[in-house]
Amino acid sequence: MSTFQVELKKVVDDSYDIEIGFDLMDTLIQNLKQGLVGDVNKYAVITDDKVKPLYATKICDKLKEAGFSVELFSFPEGEKSKTRETKAMIEDAMLEKGYKRDCCIIAVGGGVVTDLAGFIAGTFGRGVPFINYATTLLAAADASVGGKTAVDTPLATNLIGLFNQPKKVYLDIATWRSLEKRQVISGLAETIKHACLADAEFFDYLEKHMEEVLSFDKEACEHIAEKNCNIKYQVVMKDERESGLREVLNLGHTVGRAIETVSDYRLLHGEALSIGMVAQVTLAHKLGYVTEEEKQRVISLLEKAQLPITIPEYIDKEALVQKLYTDKKVKKGQLRFVIQKGIGSVVEFEEGVFATPIKEEVAREIIMSI
Amino acid sequence: MSTFQVELKKVVDDSYDIEIGFDLMDTLIQNLKQGLVGDVNKYAVITDDKVKPLYATKICDKLKEAGFSVELFSFPEGEKSKTRETKAMIEDAMLEKGYKRDCCIIAVGGGVVTDLAGFIAGTFGRGVPFINYATTLLAAADASVGGKTAVDTPLATNLIGLFNQPKKVYLDIATWRSLEKRQVISGLAETIKHACLADAEFFDYLEKHMEEVLSFDKEACEHIAEKNCNIKYQVVMKDERESGLREVLNLGHTVGRAIETVSDYRLLHGEALSIGMVAQVTLAHKLGYVTEEEKQRVISLLEKAQLPITIPEYIDKEALVQKLYTDKKVKKGQLRFVIQKGIGSVVEFEEGVFATPIKEEVAREIIMSI
Repeated sequence: MSTFQVELKKVVDDSYDIEIGFDLMDTLIQNLKQGLVGDVNKYAVITDDKVKPLYATKICDKLKEAGFSVELFSFPEGEKSKTRETKAMIEDAMLEKGYKRDCCIIAVGGGVVTDLAGFIAGTFGRGVPFINYATTLLAAADASVGGKTAVDTPLATNLIGLFNQPKKVYLDIATWRSLEKRQVISGLAETIKHACLADAEFFDYLEKHMEEVLSFDKEACEHIAEKNCNIKYQVVMKDERESGLREVLNLGHTVGRAIETVSDYRLLHGEALSIGMVAQVTLAHKLGYVTEEEKQRVISLLEKAQLPITIPEYIDKEALVQKLYTDKKVKKGQLRFVIQKGIGSVVEFEEGVFATPIKEEVAREIIMSI
Repeated sequence: MSTFQVELKKVVDDSYDIEIGFDLMDTLIQNLKQGLVGDVNKYAVITDDKVKPLYATKICDKLKEAGFSVELFSFPEGEKSKTRETKAMIEDAMLEKGYKRDCCIIAVGGGVVTDLAGFIAGTFGRGVPFINYATTLLAAADASVGGKTAVDTPLATNLIGLFNQPKKVYLDIATWRSLEKRQVISGLAETIKHACLADAEFFDYLEKHMEEVLSFDKEACEHIAEKNCNIKYQVVMKDERESGLREVLNLGHTVGRAIETVSDYRLLHGEALSIGMVAQVTLAHKLGYVTEEEKQRVISLLEKAQLPITIPEYIDKEALVQKLYTDKKVKKGQLRFVIQKGIGSVVEFEEGVFATPIKEEVAREIIMSI
């Protein structure tokens, strides 16, 4: 018997920039011309069929004009497309068109597009570079920092995927205006979550400026895009592999994700999250971590953003409780919650532990009450 | 417009050990008891239906005896199972059984099993640890060092996958004896390739000791297992992302992989590689990089190992030439070959460039001649 040692220690630099502004297509093209991604033979623009006519086709045209080789790949819009089957369909289409390892993927769209395209980039040719051109507030809040990519399967949400960092992210605030109002509002749920868990001052700002945000005031939109990146980055930086601190980003998601699934995606992610935020703040109040007034401030802010704050009637609350206890966050059969502490902070139960097991009866009581 | 910088520079340590010896199951169990993989709640043994009754069930039993929670997942044996569909089937079976992020995968089998299981581990819960328990010479030669995992698709071999390093590799030489002779012989092709590209002394050793290897002499088998790891490691160490030097490992694979596909997997990987080695050494001789005598030594060694050295009659040579020019190694429409230089070395065409474009007529001439 002998032992052979494989030494593979190295410095990895996955740093990248997030560009925040209005109309960033020309900046993207200019960056590519300046060699943002290095030795690339062919670009693949991945988008959904809703964003395709709005922005993706235009980006393709601009790439062609600039002399780049590029093709556009799109799939039906919506969370239901975030599957292994869509991933395989796009991979096959790329292979069919002769894409090899020397390509670069540009994701143009919201969170579903960036999640899926980032995952495709992570496994195509065992990894090719990718760029996110985010066209929704939700993508700005959620998909720009953290490197999480994934697909859903019949049995699990976001459980098959990769940590994969983009080469650059563009948050084009001009695109938010073309979104349905409902989509913009959905995106605000992550923004409010970020304020609740990390930044009381930002929470105040949102209370005062929600109307400007909803009417796409440029300054207000840039401010929330920056704040979202900043808060998420502070958390992710300290914990890239989601072992401890990063768990705080799951605030509101334990119940939110389950509602999203049980609603069969009739609720958008942010809408479901909003209800999940109400659930966690109600729990936080019950456990004595937030005052009645703080609880009301959180619920009022969600309401001010025109987000739902009660579970829709068509959802079977008992089915929701059942779903919760098969959630991927259930460790050893125990459902764990991240819980808000006042405004702008979460409870640290012990050093580096930001979630606590909650018994099924307690979870049921909360859910029945909202 | 503002730019937000995401700094993600860090030291990654993917080092691991390769244990080489006879009957290593108890060593595996002992290592796990000593905390090889850290905080694991459940193990998944992934294997094929051929290795399952031979070794995988036994490993499962030993894990259970030692008090670990474990389930066995198997799929039909053979390269044809290395697909996205098999990956999805195993993922779903694991989710069905309640596997979460706190699991560890143990691959028990040959190269197909370790490729597939390593890929599953890379994307299950965005990455869980895995261990390779290699039961074939080919896995010893090919799957133990380098971290390459992948599946095949109708349009491409090994193009969808990941670089993913195991926590430990076990090369159990005792298991080679249970392989069909044809499988053992197939595995020797990678061994001979390694000798050809990096180690003249090892080439001499193989010429002298091929009979001992084929009769499973313990000392000879351990020696070739170690040499395989060592040569591959020296190459991979210097180039983990396959940008330059690592390309030398493709020696013989340009033609080999195409033959494997065109044969519809009637030829085993090593058998196809053996013919690919004949093709490259014939090309090397034509271009003046090996002497007639050296060429004959390579072909004789392959023959001594009972490997095929001519293209089987059922393969359409013209279809093979066509296939070659859709190979994933074709960069900008040019087919590139790694070419042997004498025995134990490859041609470095310019600094850091170990492959050269070969015109279709030249490739056709070589293929028609063998």
